[in-house]
Amino acid sequence: MYQTKAYSAASATAPLASDAIPRRNPTERDVKIEILYCGVCHSDLHQVRDEWNEFAPTVYPVVPGHEIVGKVTEVGSAVTKFKVGDLAAVGCMVDSDLECPQCKQKHENLCPNMVLTYNGPDKHGTAPVTYGGYSDSIVVDEHFVLSVPTNLDLPGVAPLLCAGITTYSPLRRWGAGKGKKVGIVGLGGLGHMGVKFAHAFGAHTVLFTRSEAKKADALELGADEVIVSRNEDEMKQHAGSFDIILDTVSAEHDLNAYLNQLGPHGTMILVGAPEKPLPIAVMSLIFGMRRLVGSMIGDIAETQEMLDFCGEHQITSDVEVIPIQKVNEAYERLLKSDVKYRFCIDMESLKTE
Amino acid sequence: MYQTKAYSAASATAPLASDAIPRRNPTERDVKIEILYCGVCHSDLHQVRDEWNEFAPTVYPVVPGHEIVGKVTEVGSAVTKFKVGDLAAVGCMVDSDLECPQCKQKHENLCPNMVLTYNGPDKHGTAPVTYGGYSDSIVVDEHFVLSVPTNLDLPGVAPLLCAGITTYSPLRRWGAGKGKKVGIVGLGGLGHMGVKFAHAFGAHTVLFTRSEAKKADALELGADEVIVSRNEDEMKQHAGSFDIILDTVSAEHDLNAYLNQLGPHGTMILVGAPEKPLPIAVMSLIFGMRRLVGSMIGDIAETQEMLDFCGEHQITSDVEVIPIQKVNEAYERLLKSDVKYRFCIDMESLKTE
Repeated sequence: MYQTKAYSAASATAPLASDAIPRRNPTERDVKIEILYCGVCHSDLHQVRDEWNEFAPTVYPVVPGHEIVGKVTEVGSAVTKFKVGDLAAVGCMVDSDLECPQCKQKHENLCPNMVLTYNGPDKHGTAPVTYGGYSDSIVVDEHFVLSVPTNLDLPGVAPLLCAGITTYSPLRRWGAGKGKKVGIVGLGGLGHMGVKFAHAFGAHTVLFTRSEAKKADALELGADEVIVSRNEDEMKQHAGSFDIILDTVSAEHDLNAYLNQLGPHGTMILVGAPEKPLPIAVMSLIFGMRRLVGSMIGDIAETQEMLDFCGEHQITSDVEVIPIQKVNEAYERLLKSDVKYRFCIDMESLKTE
Repeated sequence: MYQTKAYSAASATAPLASDAIPRRNPTERDVKIEILYCGVCHSDLHQVRDEWNEFAPTVYPVVPGHEIVGKVTEVGSAVTKFKVGDLAAVGCMVDSDLECPQCKQKHENLCPNMVLTYNGPDKHGTAPVTYGGYSDSIVVDEHFVLSVPTNLDLPGVAPLLCAGITTYSPLRRWGAGKGKKVGIVGLGGLGHMGVKFAHAFGAHTVLFTRSEAKKADALELGADEVIVSRNEDEMKQHAGSFDIILDTVSAEHDLNAYLNQLGPHGTMILVGAPEKPLPIAVMSLIFGMRRLVGSMIGDIAETQEMLDFCGEHQITSDVEVIPIQKVNEAYERLLKSDVKYRFCIDMESLKTE
């Protein structure tokens, strides 16, 4: 074990602050990574403030961060995929049992024993729970470490590990591509990646937004059209015409308005997670032969595929880089959607703590 | 035009009673069918009582019936699929535009101009709306007429045209078959066909029922297991284990309890249509990578495939045959689910009216 610098929260109401946390020394299968950048995901805020208490109560201190990119500084003797000096990334999970039917199908993200990057039960016993990427280093089983293309801007790579894969995976699975009309609901961290991917896949890409003000930005990001969802005429004009709609909004909202935008056999994908059950017009599903599906991040192979795709197509997340000392302020701005489109912490700033 | 005998309702509160209705003389593409049997679907009752007023107001008089089997008595000059004396069947639709993108993909059931077998806008102008199968004959474009295997019991064939295809189509589409665990919710007209088909497809077939009393019947119909949905222990034991669940219940009920029975990438199919929007736990869809989909009857090619499959596998619906004079009584019993599992009208009884 060794001690490393981190930012942690001591309770649901405490701000994030400088701390020292234990990490294990690399075992033979482990990769030790010096963290260069870590994205700020809305999940970080939920977990820090214990807003998911019902199904994932927070163990304090909590060190959030699951959009991690950095440089390999040490590898275990059995590690084959990485060598010291390589770029490497870690996303939302750091372990799974690798033995269950889901793991055998390479769906580690669905493993019942999957370990989240933070606030998960630490299999190695280094601490009661895993500690995430708001830290200057991390040690992870190489199976859960991703290779990073060398041609991309690193701060913009970090959010690919959650916002990226969460949108890439279901858009691929449900066939977003040429000849398809794909809608993205919401233009935040996830939504702006959804627009970039749908466009890169060759789909006719349409952003749904409540705010007229986001039109120009959406078009610049790759949208072919923008629908202001409050405008009933625009909504009517496109009703029944979409093959796929990816809904990235986690605030409570009317899903039925978007379901009605789907054509026959159309698929609406939910990746934002409103806490309360939402009313669904079953009639709309039946008479339109429509599909409402959930999706949660992606598996390791898909994540690597996504990173490679991003390398080939020069895709990164649009980020506002901040020092870690501004992370509490960033959380407040996050609540107001005051960011284009993801905060990313420059971990160099942690060295001065 | 000619006049033919039928049972119609004159208003939402009037009983069905003997009537005479106009039918067109067969055009060159038409098949005239002497109706031998007509199943009684819950939709008949909804339409007669104008319970779907919001989206499909009933035009009176209404002649219900869309589970029609009979014998061809006349064919138009351009008809190629049928000759006089053939067995023939008609299901939920009698026309579509055959030109739209849906029709070109052979999904006539999704055509925006699809004409329902009763209470649909009559393209031929014979009457304000189409008249269904509670009648002694019907004239239908051959494209919408199905061939009936000659080895099956005809009263049991009639319900295949709605209850049969409505369950067959989505079970096939979502991959019910060997190695899959398939749940059927409800053991009524649709549910009992779902059990028969899932079993015939080779799936491990499980009936969900609220009533312990239905266990023996379900096992006899082909279920491998029965889960009493009120029994929390049984529900817990199977949680997360199903590949497919076909929910045939149209009464308002808790969909989330069944969603939680699905394994990763599992699909819950809705074919019953509760009128009110139902609350869906979005978290369950996302974290379980689950799918909630609607399905509506099936297209013509699928319906023919289903009838042929039934011929090969000796599958029919379990029916209680009634004379048409008992149809009002049958509606009352339908409301109490007092039928195993479908009423079927012997149209011979109409001749004495």
